[in-house]
Amino acid sequence: MSFRAQPLIRFEARIEVGHRPGILDPQGGVIERALPALGYGNVSHVRVGKSIRLAVEAPDEAAARAQVEEMCRRLLANPVIEDFSIEIFSAETV
Amino acid sequence: MSFRAQPLIRFEARIEVGHRPGILDPQGGVIERALPALGYGNVSHVRVGKSIRLAVEAPDEAAARAQVEEMCRRLLANPVIEDFSIEIFSAETV
Repeated sequence: MSFRAQPLIRFEARIEVGHRPGILDPQGGVIERALPALGYGNVSHVRVGKSIRLAVEAPDEAAARAQVEEMCRRLLANPVIEDFSIEIFSAETV
Repeated sequence: MSFRAQPLIRFEARIEVGHRPGILDPQGGVIERALPALGYGNVSHVRVGKSIRLAVEAPDEAAARAQVEEMCRRLLANPVIEDFSIEIFSAETV
């Protein structure tokens, strides 16, 4: 087995953290109740979550995605009440 | 000119609201400073924004997008310090 360092690639991650179905979303409720008075009575199902963008250096996209998933479970999301989805974009070689 | 009602289609919108470049992002800074202690020293450029999902009924996708853009400028984002991007997905006919 060789321990030669693999070149690292910089990936950009876009993470969306939202409430799990059935979990109360007070911020979404406030927006939804404000909309009709502004003339937007045709809007419903407003849900407000977090959008996190970050850059991560990893040998390949699978490694980048695995690390971002782990970070979501440990730090960025609360798995009891929140769902998350991850998109990975490749940027440039570091 | 005819006033016959056009059939309405239900669209889903995904809105990402983030800080404009150069605007301080304290929440992103806190996360970025916490990551090395958890073993994630290879992460940088952390930015935290809002992700808003909603349903809107409109005659076509262009009308749905125009309305969501107007809602972002008037209510959902603060154009002085925030940028927003909008994705529209068609759901089903109402």
